[in-house]
Amino acid sequence: MTTPTLHLNKGAERRIRSGHHWIYNNEVDQSASPLKGFAPGQVANAVDFRGKPVGSFMVNPHALICARLISRQADRGLTSSLVKNRLKQALALRQMCYDAPYYRWVYGDSDGLSGLVVDRFGDVLSVQVSTAGIEACLDNILEHLIRLVQPKGILLKNDGKMRSVEGLESYVRVAYGEVPDQVLLIENGVSFEAPLMTGQKTGWFYDHRPNRQLAASFARDKTVLDVFSYLGGWGLTAGSQGAKAVTCVDASALALNGVLENARRNGLEDRVTTHEGDAFDILQTLHSDKQRFDIVIVDPPAFITRRKDIDSGERAYQRLNDAAMKLVNHGGLLVSASCSMHLENDRLRDMIRASARKLDRHALILAEGSQGADHPVLPAVKETRYIKSIFAQVTPGF
Amino acid sequence: MTTPTLHLNKGAERRIRSGHHWIYNNEVDQSASPLKGFAPGQVANAVDFRGKPVGSFMVNPHALICARLISRQADRGLTSSLVKNRLKQALALRQMCYDAPYYRWVYGDSDGLSGLVVDRFGDVLSVQVSTAGIEACLDNILEHLIRLVQPKGILLKNDGKMRSVEGLESYVRVAYGEVPDQVLLIENGVSFEAPLMTGQKTGWFYDHRPNRQLAASFARDKTVLDVFSYLGGWGLTAGSQGAKAVTCVDASALALNGVLENARRNGLEDRVTTHEGDAFDILQTLHSDKQRFDIVIVDPPAFITRRKDIDSGERAYQRLNDAAMKLVNHGGLLVSASCSMHLENDRLRDMIRASARKLDRHALILAEGSQGADHPVLPAVKETRYIKSIFAQVTPGF
Repeated sequence: MTTPTLHLNKGAERRIRSGHHWIYNNEVDQSASPLKGFAPGQVANAVDFRGKPVGSFMVNPHALICARLISRQADRGLTSSLVKNRLKQALALRQMCYDAPYYRWVYGDSDGLSGLVVDRFGDVLSVQVSTAGIEACLDNILEHLIRLVQPKGILLKNDGKMRSVEGLESYVRVAYGEVPDQVLLIENGVSFEAPLMTGQKTGWFYDHRPNRQLAASFARDKTVLDVFSYLGGWGLTAGSQGAKAVTCVDASALALNGVLENARRNGLEDRVTTHEGDAFDILQTLHSDKQRFDIVIVDPPAFITRRKDIDSGERAYQRLNDAAMKLVNHGGLLVSASCSMHLENDRLRDMIRASARKLDRHALILAEGSQGADHPVLPAVKETRYIKSIFAQVTPGF
Repeated sequence: MTTPTLHLNKGAERRIRSGHHWIYNNEVDQSASPLKGFAPGQVANAVDFRGKPVGSFMVNPHALICARLISRQADRGLTSSLVKNRLKQALALRQMCYDAPYYRWVYGDSDGLSGLVVDRFGDVLSVQVSTAGIEACLDNILEHLIRLVQPKGILLKNDGKMRSVEGLESYVRVAYGEVPDQVLLIENGVSFEAPLMTGQKTGWFYDHRPNRQLAASFARDKTVLDVFSYLGGWGLTAGSQGAKAVTCVDASALALNGVLENARRNGLEDRVTTHEGDAFDILQTLHSDKQRFDIVIVDPPAFITRRKDIDSGERAYQRLNDAAMKLVNHGGLLVSASCSMHLENDRLRDMIRASARKLDRHALILAEGSQGADHPVLPAVKETRYIKSIFAQVTPGF
């Protein structure tokens, strides 16, 4: 059986040759190679308008991103040996960066497996599949995940909203062994329990690990406000490094219950308080109550998920940063995070500027952070870079 | 004596009110307030075209940046108490960030003292003045520096090229006490001796401190190439954290002699080699000799010092990154640094992409770093942000 050919329009090869991994459906020469002739997940050799090979791709005729790079060589499918090698290489990178098995093992395109995410919690793996190409070889992937690290259990958390775009059904199921609802993980020396089934996304966000560590490095004897705390990733890390009081704010009672359990797990229950409710409301109330903190951390969910939400999303980020900066003690720290791929670093930096001017503060950026090394950025695919954090000291204006 | 008034053209107030600190000479209403009526360093109240106060500024009629913010309030000169408070606040920030007295104590506009840089090496201070306003109150500044930390000696390293722009003479002299030519400093736990008088800039570059630490965190049992090493700031930090071999490249024999002395000081002389010569030539020779390294660090001097050099400078950065990436072992790390304010983060990231494509490598960005917290960025003044570093893992292309 020969690999079918996907003909690209003139010029469409350039972005791929310069390093990108994705082909959009308007870049395909549909007269020469109608997309409807491909099955979801089928492998094809893409060629440019002159017929020169561009590489091997997994095709999905129903998706806007209709083809995703497997290899720059032709005739390379997601074979068992290719999958194994990619998983091994991804594992080697994480083992180089971390000395304990708690990390994102596979991060999609960056690890050459577009549409696959694997988070590792010791001997439990949480897997997300968002492309038809990966779904088509999932058994193969599971087999190699099992062989490489002998997990006790693998959960398929296949309920992400990108799946419908690829025409994939939504489901959550145990794919292998036994998966407890609560898994244990260690991050920056702090133990957390995270709910795999009922938690957000894959259950835990490893992406801010270095930023949580940096925030905590300023926390000795300080008061800390952790807004959108989820399970306390930022606040409890600060607590473990000497913060004298940590206040966690979240809209989810379940998350805040997790904060308190995680606090007990680390012997921090004496210094942790929680507030359940809308973050904006609570920031307002804290301000009215004249409560101030040495370190205020805001790590909201993505306010911008689609390009057309940039304006409204940026206004929300600005309001949040304004409200957060008001609560920072003189000389204290605002840690402003974002996980919106569409929010540029320069824009977030500019929001710190704008908040400072509005409130007549002098804000100095001491550091900026991006995502951890287990979410490596592929420089040609800017969509792989999404985490930002800014550490700003706030003093009175002069 | 009343403070003279500096009238701004319509609209020029906007940039200042939004947070910037500088007024350019084409923004001044010279019919209402001719710049030639001001003495270099004189303090003035700037007002907008409606006569509303914009703030107090130090004026230099001879410079393109003809006025620099002192305060957003009117009638605030660089008085003894203002200078003292700014120095104290700057010191408090550094003491919050570092537990030993080795840092940039004052970083110009960010610390509210536009044109003043003070580097601290324990009880020796190295001071650079680049504006007439600061020069005019230098005695006052020195007095407070002495009172605040009782240094043994203060060096005025007033030979920067920005001084001529401000009409200031170039000189280097001991302003107070005794200043040894060699000063000792500790950075990331490593001891260095740096030549204050004969060294580059103020003698040492504290700005890459966090990036040197991050590079070193990957170095255990690795081979490291440190290109443009100066005194070994990157290479010896890697050595101290377990690198098995460190090769330092620099054009200056004096700098490399410093590397070897600093290696001995830290018990690393058994693992350090130096190569004197042009970095591009040496990278080429190492490549021809089939030498490869686990970690290659390139931290060149600014290839872009003026906006008009952006194109040629970016070509030089690209050539350097190409040459450096060639020397990285499979799975190893390229650390690409830049101190050019005019080189944007996105551009440096794109160079990593371009090098990888040219050489058929898969490059993953594991982290990005900016300048240390003792060089805090004022978000409204983008000129205060200049350090970039990218940490990229390099594997074969697929």
